[in-house]
Amino acid sequence: MTHRGDRSRNTKTKIHPDIVLRLVENPLRRRILQKLALEARYTLDLSKELGVSQQAICKHLRLLEEAGLVSSRIQKSSCGPPRLYYAPTRHYSISIAFGPSMFEASVEEYRNNEVRAVMKDFEKMLSEIPSLSEKMEALERIVEETEKELDMLRARLRELYLRKGLAERWARSLGKV
Amino acid sequence: MTHRGDRSRNTKTKIHPDIVLRLVENPLRRRILQKLALEARYTLDLSKELGVSQQAICKHLRLLEEAGLVSSRIQKSSCGPPRLYYAPTRHYSISIAFGPSMFEASVEEYRNNEVRAVMKDFEKMLSEIPSLSEKMEALERIVEETEKELDMLRARLRELYLRKGLAERWARSLGKV
Repeated sequence: MTHRGDRSRNTKTKIHPDIVLRLVENPLRRRILQKLALEARYTLDLSKELGVSQQAICKHLRLLEEAGLVSSRIQKSSCGPPRLYYAPTRHYSISIAFGPSMFEASVEEYRNNEVRAVMKDFEKMLSEIPSLSEKMEALERIVEETEKELDMLRARLRELYLRKGLAERWARSLGKV
Repeated sequence: MTHRGDRSRNTKTKIHPDIVLRLVENPLRRRILQKLALEARYTLDLSKELGVSQQAICKHLRLLEEAGLVSSRIQKSSCGPPRLYYAPTRHYSISIAFGPSMFEASVEEYRNNEVRAVMKDFEKMLSEIPSLSEKMEALERIVEETEKELDMLRARLRELYLRKGLAERWARSLGKV
């Protein structure tokens, strides 16, 4: 018997922003997440590449999995026994600004339709390019262009955070007059 | 005797991004930084407002001060003994994105001229408004407008992080073909 709860399996529970930040704060966990973003990986493989004991990798993967940021599945291997592969499950964007006269912190999970729209768009673009070499060129161009725009956006973000903070601080001090 | 090093007192040493992230990850330290962004504060005052022991506040302020993110100075009080006031010293903007097919992390300290330009612009704007009530209205408007633009920018940032990540992942997997 299935009960109604099963229908909402895709509705993920929200992870508390403090927990997301705590998990991402650790430098080794960030390196693991960086590797997993490129492809699913298994413990021994990560341990060799990052030069860290399997035990440490295991511990961090378990913490990430318990929180719901990564998931694991057994996959057959062409040579050797089946292995447990880990992959990230959720998209997050974190933005924090602080200093004299400003403080902002946002931990945003991507909405499913947001991810789908970008992926669909991306795959459509790629499928329309006939040759492999042209695909590779297009991908390089995208990385270059997005990097440039990201730099610009982050600079504008810095400015806005400061402007907003100054306005709040002045409003507070003038309100006391 | 002063030696040449004294001249560069304003050239701050860079704090390692991992340390900045570790300090900001703690929820209580974030709440402290948020309070300090509005005005300089002393321990007892913060302890009462945040409902946390003075000892805990002290510990976190010391960690922040040792790292160079806040500084303290003694200030006379109109009633009671002089007090040690804490205030942030550096402006930072942190941006992290991670998930299936993306990983980005940037910890950027504001450049001094970047801060000065925004502050100068802001203070000029404010000084040109004659009345207090109009100043307050202008400040409210700035907060509203910057919030709207920040939401838009963060949405675009999320999209770009994902696009860039997808391009890197595809480039990697096509490169293996």
